[in-house]
Amino acid sequence: MMRIMGLSVLVGLSLLGGSAVWAADPTAAEVQTNLNYVWTLIAAALVFFMQAGFALVETGFTRAKNAVNILMKNLMDFAIGTIMFWAIGFGLMFGVTAGGWIGTDGFFLSEYKPGGDPWVLAFWMFQVVFCATAATIVSGAMAERTKFSAYLVYSAVISALIYPIFGGWAWGSLYHGGGWLGKLGFIDFAGSTVVHSVGGWCALAGALILGPRIGKYGKDGRPRAIPGHNMPLAALGVFILWIGWFGFNPGSTTAGIKDIAWIFVNTNMAAAAGVLGALATIWTITKKPDLSMTLNGALAGLVGITAGCNNVTPASSVAIGFIAGVLVVFSVLFIDRLRIDDPVGAVSVHGVCGAWGTLAAAIFNAEGFTIHQFGVQLLGVATAFVWTFSLAFILFKIIQATMGLRVSAEEEFEGLDVGEHGLSAYPDFALISEHGTLLPPAGTAKGEYRTANLEYRTAEANK
Amino acid sequence: MMRIMGLSVLVGLSLLGGSAVWAADPTAAEVQTNLNYVWTLIAAALVFFMQAGFALVETGFTRAKNAVNILMKNLMDFAIGTIMFWAIGFGLMFGVTAGGWIGTDGFFLSEYKPGGDPWVLAFWMFQVVFCATAATIVSGAMAERTKFSAYLVYSAVISALIYPIFGGWAWGSLYHGGGWLGKLGFIDFAGSTVVHSVGGWCALAGALILGPRIGKYGKDGRPRAIPGHNMPLAALGVFILWIGWFGFNPGSTTAGIKDIAWIFVNTNMAAAAGVLGALATIWTITKKPDLSMTLNGALAGLVGITAGCNNVTPASSVAIGFIAGVLVVFSVLFIDRLRIDDPVGAVSVHGVCGAWGTLAAAIFNAEGFTIHQFGVQLLGVATAFVWTFSLAFILFKIIQATMGLRVSAEEEFEGLDVGEHGLSAYPDFALISEHGTLLPPAGTAKGEYRTANLEYRTAEANK
Amino acid sequence: MMRIMGLSVLVGLSLLGGSAVWAADPTAAEVQTNLNYVWTLIAAALVFFMQAGFALVETGFTRAKNAVNILMKNLMDFAIGTIMFWAIGFGLMFGVTAGGWIGTDGFFLSEYKPGGDPWVLAFWMFQVVFCATAATIVSGAMAERTKFSAYLVYSAVISALIYPIFGGWAWGSLYHGGGWLGKLGFIDFAGSTVVHSVGGWCALAGALILGPRIGKYGKDGRPRAIPGHNMPLAALGVFILWIGWFGFNPGSTTAGIKDIAWIFVNTNMAAAAGVLGALATIWTITKKPDLSMTLNGALAGLVGITAGCNNVTPASSVAIGFIAGVLVVFSVLFIDRLRIDDPVGAVSVHGVCGAWGTLAAAIFNAEGFTIHQFGVQLLGVATAFVWTFSLAFILFKIIQATMGLRVSAEEEFEGLDVGEHGLSAYPDFALISEHGTLLPPAGTAKGEYRTANLEYRTAEANK
Repeated sequence: MMRIMGLSVLVGLSLLGGSAVWAADPTAAEVQTNLNYVWTLIAAALVFFMQAGFALVETGFTRAKNAVNILMKNLMDFAIGTIMFWAIGFGLMFGVTAGGWIGTDGFFLSEYKPGGDPWVLAFWMFQVVFCATAATIVSGAMAERTKFSAYLVYSAVISALIYPIFGGWAWGSLYHGGGWLGKLGFIDFAGSTVVHSVGGWCALAGALILGPRIGKYGKDGRPRAIPGHNMPLAALGVFILWIGWFGFNPGSTTAGIKDIAWIFVNTNMAAAAGVLGALATIWTITKKPDLSMTLNGALAGLVGITAGCNNVTPASSVAIGFIAGVLVVFSVLFIDRLRIDDPVGAVSVHGVCGAWGTLAAAIFNAEGFTIHQFGVQLLGVATAFVWTFSLAFILFKIIQATMGLRVSAEEEFEGLDVGEHGLSAYPDFALISEHGTLLPPAGTAKGEYRTANLEYRTAEANK
Repeated sequence: MMRIMGLSVLVGLSLLGGSAVWAADPTAAEVQTNLNYVWTLIAAALVFFMQAGFALVETGFTRAKNAVNILMKNLMDFAIGTIMFWAIGFGLMFGVTAGGWIGTDGFFLSEYKPGGDPWVLAFWMFQVVFCATAATIVSGAMAERTKFSAYLVYSAVISALIYPIFGGWAWGSLYHGGGWLGKLGFIDFAGSTVVHSVGGWCALAGALILGPRIGKYGKDGRPRAIPGHNMPLAALGVFILWIGWFGFNPGSTTAGIKDIAWIFVNTNMAAAAGVLGALATIWTITKKPDLSMTLNGALAGLVGITAGCNNVTPASSVAIGFIAGVLVVFSVLFIDRLRIDDPVGAVSVHGVCGAWGTLAAAIFNAEGFTIHQFGVQLLGVATAFVWTFSLAFILFKIIQATMGLRVSAEEEFEGLDVGEHGLSAYPDFALISEHGTLLPPAGTAKGEYRTANLEYRTAEANK
Repeated sequence: MMRIMGLSVLVGLSLLGGSAVWAADPTAAEVQTNLNYVWTLIAAALVFFMQAGFALVETGFTRAKNAVNILMKNLMDFAIGTIMFWAIGFGLMFGVTAGGWIGTDGFFLSEYKPGGDPWVLAFWMFQVVFCATAATIVSGAMAERTKFSAYLVYSAVISALIYPIFGGWAWGSLYHGGGWLGKLGFIDFAGSTVVHSVGGWCALAGALILGPRIGKYGKDGRPRAIPGHNMPLAALGVFILWIGWFGFNPGSTTAGIKDIAWIFVNTNMAAAAGVLGALATIWTITKKPDLSMTLNGALAGLVGITAGCNNVTPASSVAIGFIAGVLVVFSVLFIDRLRIDDPVGAVSVHGVCGAWGTLAAAIFNAEGFTIHQFGVQLLGVATAFVWTFSLAFILFKIIQATMGLRVSAEEEFEGLDVGEHGLSAYPDFALISEHGTLLPPAGTAKGEYRTANLEYRTAEANK
């Protein structure tokens, strides 16, 4: 007879190098602790998956000639974010702090010694995927014109400094009474402000300094739509982000407890209502049920519920999400009118709806609205904006003045894929330029990209 | 030293607004309850992900010019389904009922009060993703010719009424002795009938009333293949559905218990066997190992095992899945011969194989086959057909007579993406028409779509 | 009032046909066992998802004309693998063995009787997805020129014999003291050698015997890049593989215990460092930050940490992953110089980095480096190579001599999608040939594929 049954747990452990022994008779508290690990880490995996979601949304909403560049940036900000948050960020965010301003230990996961309590590892794993979420939001707003090397520098700085320091103000306090915002009672359960607004305001600074893409605004100053090149990818990205949020919000308990049900339902309600809010708004305005706006509505609802997912009712979640969905449409149109070119709407989705969600956590608080709480939320929202926008602005200005932030006009025209990466995302497909002409295939000499040779309208005229 | 370790659980809870206190010394039963929450909600997240799977399968199996429309419908039926099932459906399905016909309370999740037992929320979350699965099945069968606004109405009605009322007959009884089918001993563990056949028979009614796509049947009445435009998306969709089913079937325990292993294995066996069954069949018939049929074989196997996943052996699961794979091929060919145009095979996969799976749960019952059980299964299958097909037929007829169900021939020719949504799914790609001509790029004037100007064969003739 | 709350567990169980009764008062050990099931099966689902990841990476890295074929092979090796591992492989790998060479019972999951302890089912589910991972690695290296029917035969043999027998030598011993490599103390926690090198060396044998794709090496013998046709799919595939690895490595505990945190962090560290290692290397060599190499860097890091994920520190994981990232670039270039055509770099990623990871588990052992352990690792690496490469070589030679291994040159030129499957992956898109010409649409007569008629350069010259 086979002898594998019942021994598996022992087996798993026998590989641990003897550092662990199986408690033949664990206590219920020990099992609950194990469950907390399992839940927190599965949630971390789901939040990690959001990296794929962002990559697809940003790729789908921009042009084919920049797809490799967007994918590369999304991959790199997670890789760089992992290393920087391990080396620096986590310590600044959660280390011991005097005065609640900045952590001073725990760098390189130095707290953990093999054989010690591994909770810090589970917690770090959950936090690093949050840090990377904040970082990745920016790439969409700066898409199609940013130098790749400049983006790498930016990624390192947000992961090591901008995100963790603000995060420590809000969340660090939970652990050692240190973060000053947290001590004031700031509610941001899963990061409408800490993650999304921080990402959104960095994105705003970047988009402002970069300036719009060539051709985005006509000579009359009116915005021109530059449609995204792959709607199925964008839609898949939103579905992936939605499931990722089932880790993002409920996982923020970092404990496998009943309360996650409440957070799950609120998260889903707000997303669904965000879809409806955005659809109703854009349909009314443009008379067309636009897919990209509706997809952004889902994200708006999700960002909006993130702060209050644990202290509002399902019905309130519907309201919060619906309003976020309406808001994101007006915000996108407004920012476009300001001639700030944000190709994917990241500032609106994450910055604006993050702020809305943070205020909504006070407005719809199931324990009752108080002016004091609203004031604290407002302070948190304002602080996030001032801190993040200022630092990101300075950072991008320094990059601009030194290594350069934007690619050349020629490279932007040709696409960053060829210019930065020497690669086309779709070499087997016939692509068309914005002027309705067929582009020569990738791999032909660089100059040929500018003389696309099969003009539809000419051909038609010759018929 | 950092002080985050060991405090995390407390931290998570300190954010709950004081409504929860951490049991320093939980009982084993309390930990099991927490595990049930964690498992049920992770399973719900996996089932949610099936929405992405359906969106990709349906998009991949239809034409590029309708991709935005399909994605939009898949997004909308989940958003609308969430709100309708919250407001109405869940109460009809699981509320208190006299006589087992229809629930009468629990609307708007009114059972739950903040601070109360949140199980109803976890349970609702798992049920809403099932409801949305039934709804989304229909969009594939009605693809490429249905008015977007009509689809929204349909989505609301299936989520609020058609699905929940039948669901209550089969599953409501489990909770309060109410559903008449459940009381008879109807076996449908995870919904071969309740979810899949219901979706499939709605799809049949819709496809029948809509009529075939233009060009689907030649002047001689013979079916013409209209190939799907993106096989990688379709294949990815099937992989996503497969993993989603690991939530769908084992999650239907709504408890984190050993039995999920048995259900996992059965689910996987049937899917694999479905692939082999469909491949063998189509290869024999057409002499080519066709990808789209084989992908449908995986889904057929999964639908087929859904009813009996908890009461048949792994070997029986292989048989059930293989037969489902064979069946789906013949069913697709047969329905095509009836001139019912179901672009993705939804009626065959979900309707026919759902019925097969429900009968198979009796035929392969590990506790022995009985005529009585088979009769009950047959009754359930027949009831689902009569209820669902009739209601859906009436519904679509009403929509047809009032707001209209089908787009104009002109819009159908141009594609619903431009006509309904003002957007192209792939604006950077050169697309070709069904007549082998290059289409002018999106954004050119509407009329130009009809005069695609680069005729391959002409060009060749001129060489 | 609704009566669903609190009854759900009972409900789930009431469907089990009476074979299970709910322990009203479970012990903590029973709850831990349930948690082990939940974790192991969720991990299995994540590893299953890697099938989608491999399918996308391989599809994205090859040409559009072979996409259907690659997807089909990825689907089939999982379907066939499931059935073969159930019928034969699992018994050979984990059955009772005399001498540690080969298991002799447990075929068709015969150990399990309904109502018995279902652990063997959970364990099988986790193992079958590992087996399928080894099998699927090969399809990438043999892409774009292998006969579909030949691939089916190969899939059956690796799943039934090659993988399980070697796997039993390394892992079978854990369960019943049988596997001779395991008894020597071979460290391969999650399968750098057992899964990845085995897959990689099969891939090497296949690529060698097949020979390069037409056009891969110029008349001067220098390699020519054949770029992959869809970078977003490839990148998505890597993200999916990355999340899948959070099941692959931590799930190998097959127990829901604290140690998974350590493994999660190590896995993520190595992947991130692999990205950086590969990027730095390729950027230095070619002066361009190449996406496909960087994506392979992530996979290299993941493969590299798989053996030692449970016995090295996070800092060591960074080193292991970074070195793997460097290694994979040089290995790809080296294998290309040997004129072995591996379209996706599978031999380098899985074979070479798998070997590296296995040695690294001794080099970076947190409990200290010993020559003896290093020797055992080396023995394991060498054994895997000799066993796998030899058998795979013989197998492919037999296939070649009997049914044929490679498609005709004509079919290779036209693409395997049309030749083998009668289907195009992208019928609505205008595709271009490698010579920069537009291809006629799918569905036109076969011969037309060879006379693509719109030559860009000609058109340009005529302007």
